[in-house]
Amino acid sequence: MKKEENLEKMRHTLSHVLAAAVQELYPTATFGIGPAIDNGFYYDIDFGDAKISDADLPKIEKKMRGIIARKLPMEKRVVSKMDALNWARDHSQKYKVELIEDLPESAEISFYDLGDVFTDLCKGPHVKNTGEVGAFKLIRVAGAYWRGDEKREMLTRIYGVAFDTQEELDEYLKRQEEAKARDHRKLGRELDLFCFSDLVGAGLPLFTPRGTELRELMANYSLSLRGREGFKKVWTPHITKTDLYKTSGHYAKFGDELFMVHSQVNGEDFAMKPMNCPHHAQIFASRPRTYKEMPVRYMEATTDYRDEKTGELGGLSRVRSLTQDDSHVFCRKDQIKDEVKRLVAIVKELYTTMGMQKLRARLSYRSDEDKYLGDKKLWGMAQKQIKQAAIDNGLDYFEQEGEAAFYGPKIDFMAEDAIGREHQLATIQLDFVQPERFGLEFTNEKGEKERPVMIHHATLGSIERFLSVFIEHTGGWFPFWCAPEQVRIVTVNDKVSDYVKKITDTLSGIVLDKPLKYNELRFTVDDSADSLGKKIKRATDLKIPVLIIVGPKDVEEGIVSLRLRDKEEKIKLSALADYLRGL
Amino acid sequence: MKKEENLEKMRHTLSHVLAAAVQELYPTATFGIGPAIDNGFYYDIDFGDAKISDADLPKIEKKMRGIIARKLPMEKRVVSKMDALNWARDHSQKYKVELIEDLPESAEISFYDLGDVFTDLCKGPHVKNTGEVGAFKLIRVAGAYWRGDEKREMLTRIYGVAFDTQEELDEYLKRQEEAKARDHRKLGRELDLFCFSDLVGAGLPLFTPRGTELRELMANYSLSLRGREGFKKVWTPHITKTDLYKTSGHYAKFGDELFMVHSQVNGEDFAMKPMNCPHHAQIFASRPRTYKEMPVRYMEATTDYRDEKTGELGGLSRVRSLTQDDSHVFCRKDQIKDEVKRLVAIVKELYTTMGMQKLRARLSYRSDEDKYLGDKKLWGMAQKQIKQAAIDNGLDYFEQEGEAAFYGPKIDFMAEDAIGREHQLATIQLDFVQPERFGLEFTNEKGEKERPVMIHHATLGSIERFLSVFIEHTGGWFPFWCAPEQVRIVTVNDKVSDYVKKITDTLSGIVLDKPLKYNELRFTVDDSADSLGKKIKRATDLKIPVLIIVGPKDVEEGIVSLRLRDKEEKIKLSALADYLRGL
Repeated sequence: MKKEENLEKMRHTLSHVLAAAVQELYPTATFGIGPAIDNGFYYDIDFGDAKISDADLPKIEKKMRGIIARKLPMEKRVVSKMDALNWARDHSQKYKVELIEDLPESAEISFYDLGDVFTDLCKGPHVKNTGEVGAFKLIRVAGAYWRGDEKREMLTRIYGVAFDTQEELDEYLKRQEEAKARDHRKLGRELDLFCFSDLVGAGLPLFTPRGTELRELMANYSLSLRGREGFKKVWTPHITKTDLYKTSGHYAKFGDELFMVHSQVNGEDFAMKPMNCPHHAQIFASRPRTYKEMPVRYMEATTDYRDEKTGELGGLSRVRSLTQDDSHVFCRKDQIKDEVKRLVAIVKELYTTMGMQKLRARLSYRSDEDKYLGDKKLWGMAQKQIKQAAIDNGLDYFEQEGEAAFYGPKIDFMAEDAIGREHQLATIQLDFVQPERFGLEFTNEKGEKERPVMIHHATLGSIERFLSVFIEHTGGWFPFWCAPEQVRIVTVNDKVSDYVKKITDTLSGIVLDKPLKYNELRFTVDDSADSLGKKIKRATDLKIPVLIIVGPKDVEEGIVSLRLRDKEEKIKLSALADYLRGL
Repeated sequence: MKKEENLEKMRHTLSHVLAAAVQELYPTATFGIGPAIDNGFYYDIDFGDAKISDADLPKIEKKMRGIIARKLPMEKRVVSKMDALNWARDHSQKYKVELIEDLPESAEISFYDLGDVFTDLCKGPHVKNTGEVGAFKLIRVAGAYWRGDEKREMLTRIYGVAFDTQEELDEYLKRQEEAKARDHRKLGRELDLFCFSDLVGAGLPLFTPRGTELRELMANYSLSLRGREGFKKVWTPHITKTDLYKTSGHYAKFGDELFMVHSQVNGEDFAMKPMNCPHHAQIFASRPRTYKEMPVRYMEATTDYRDEKTGELGGLSRVRSLTQDDSHVFCRKDQIKDEVKRLVAIVKELYTTMGMQKLRARLSYRSDEDKYLGDKKLWGMAQKQIKQAAIDNGLDYFEQEGEAAFYGPKIDFMAEDAIGREHQLATIQLDFVQPERFGLEFTNEKGEKERPVMIHHATLGSIERFLSVFIEHTGGWFPFWCAPEQVRIVTVNDKVSDYVKKITDTLSGIVLDKPLKYNELRFTVDDSADSLGKKIKRATDLKIPVLIIVGPKDVEEGIVSLRLRDKEEKIKLSALADYLRGL
């Protein structure tokens, strides 16, 4: 972590250099705070009446580079609280005054002098001189309330990014550009996948036909992998009496985060389900069970409702209506390893299909704290089984004590996307508590009642959040099998309709079998009177993976002219079906 | 309707005969009211300290038959309110006192004397004498609050059924027996299709794996018929800001029947959707539309929530969570007929597949009342188109003025089940109002904005209610294609496992294509150590349509022994796949 520490010093020093440059350009500016952050730094500054925008950044940056070129030293100086206050008052730095006043009497108070150009109240640490700050760039201006309090002054926050080398900085900036181009909210609109309505509300996406196709393919594929392993679909309602969560224990912990539902007709109260485990436990409990049918495996792609803060909602990344590809295994204690192994294999298969095969797994164990419920010996045994399942599947894993849920140990999976970002998506969680609280049991070989263990698992996580990642991962160029529209036929003129019919007859017969079975080809024909250029642009804007452009020459020669994202090909019509099946 | 009127007189007279018999047997009984009802009659009686149960009915019935045999006359007598009250007080009939006191001064008050054995306050009419009451039977005893008020006395209600002839009565009783044996709540438990949980709440069924299989097959089949006709699936959340219903107009009409949802985190209010049309309208409105893409057709099998009275909930017939196989067409005014025709054809196809081909359709038109919204000329044109669609499809239809919804004319379908009961399930409704209220529009050929018409349609209606009908219609013997478990292999001993493997290999390869495509065969193997009899009983109890019983002789001869509901067959293993595909 040495490199990380040094990087933080460099970034922190850059925030001082930024302030120094601002002071030279805007002598009346008053300074708030200027910390190092992930990938860079910022400074919150009160510019008084001056309006600062992104257009002012080059000027400030230039001034910063001048200061850096002088390799000015950063020198620490410890002062008394009285001296610190006097300095801040003398320099009309009211925010610094406030900060100093709030410091405890016992605190060491230090200033950092940046050569002779800028002095700031600061704990440090910093690099030795401005020659050591690496490569940086100011990126944007934003508003920020002083101390994050919306009742206080609105300051101007200037953000910079900074790295050891120019190459790393360029790499980062390029990735940011890429991420912006891939923004799933932008692509969601452009590809007509989902929309929002002010009448329906924030965080409640509505999926159009294309988006629905995509989400159903994702859900069906995810559940199909578990179906193969003996999971059975169940169906549960979206609301429940709160009694269910009072019994499960969720109400005591999360009761004030539930969406409450009120019946005006009967005066009864319900809650919207934020998860499905207690409902599934009720199905398990609906009839007597014996060891012969264990493990019992339920799955359901169903929408849960979570009362997220309005300000935190964004596209599909964080929504109020989240559809989990959820499942629950009810198994015997000695079946944990096999069940977890099965689920880990499913996670690996799914993320490989999605082109996100770089997976890291965190095995979260209990610590010695009291907060964990359930028998300690059972925990120990379960943690061993989880680890063995990880090893048996060749997982890239790391272990963390104290990170388990209170009800059992778990595995969280981090998947890396095409531009190197890691996303926590799939999860496998053991649960010793709900079986206890719901009194779940089965009859064992000796005729005794035995308590099962529950294993929660979602492979995609929530379909909405997965899609937000997947849309950005693919940049909207979805793999052939799951593109909402896979093939579009575009006609050059209106004399090719007989041949188009031959092509569509071929396409109608194509049913993909991998990775999802019975996946009928989705295609359309654009034989409108618009120009060929316009028709091709329309299809390309929708990122349809395969265009078939049909002109008189294709008819003559009995070929099809294909335009894919990265190449063009001409093949015989008779070879078309096999070609598409091979994509 | 003459026959109906006479039947009502007969049933009403029987309620007096019932009271007369009770009075003879229980001289201190006090009488409430005794009306004729559908299929029979009842009388609410206060038996004081005596406990009356179904076991007492034969005795009462015998006494009734004695009175009937005497052919006693029913004679009306008009009395003053004072005389009436005196009579009731003299006979300690406190409920009659209350009834008489509540009568307006101007009312004619009459008594009916049943020969010399019983006198009752009654408006009539009745048959002339007890010889004319037809065939009857007392069927059960229930509790009923006096005047339906749970704060008043609990009386004993004795129910009887009555018809013109003994044949009709026997027919009715037989059908009742059949209906009882088919009761979907009973079958739901026995076939392990769904369950309820006290912790989740009344009217909120949870579907087990078998029930989920069934409901998904129904939903998928229903949507597949529309998918063939150009409908596209969409997905919408289960909650919305009430703004949506304020705009649609539903709030003003049904606002106090909505399940209200409260966000504790943000303090916002939402409602659970009781229908999907406004959500679908928002998707239509999410981008500009032109005449080229009209009609736009959306469909969604999604769960709506309706705040039914707790007392009215029952099995799947009436639930709070109802999943509609819903769809909405947005079309031009001159496309109505074709769209409706398409939907009528789908209804006919689906109910034929379900073995409920006897369909009646009610075409509901507007009357001259003011309550109908939208242009009168548009109504006239639309009603003509609907009728033409009905005729073109050869529907058995009838027309009713004044039965339309306020927003447009409609077609409701009544399907007859296997024991002759009619159920209103599918519906097709035009809507001129929501497009107006949401300002929906598309650009026509002239570049002008035009307003579409909406067509609501559900083929099954709600999946839950359809299943309640379908389970009783089939008595739980589901058609082969949609049985949750289609085939069970039952082994005679443990020496046949190699042969069982050969059979399961065959079964694994079977995918049915009708009426639903890609319908993989669902089968299990019972090779437990239980006796063959026990294993067969277990499978029969679940009404699995095909049992394959595998013994050493089958292995030797390379055959499979099939046991179906109504026959047994032996066929070559090589012929098994085709045999099952043909079921």
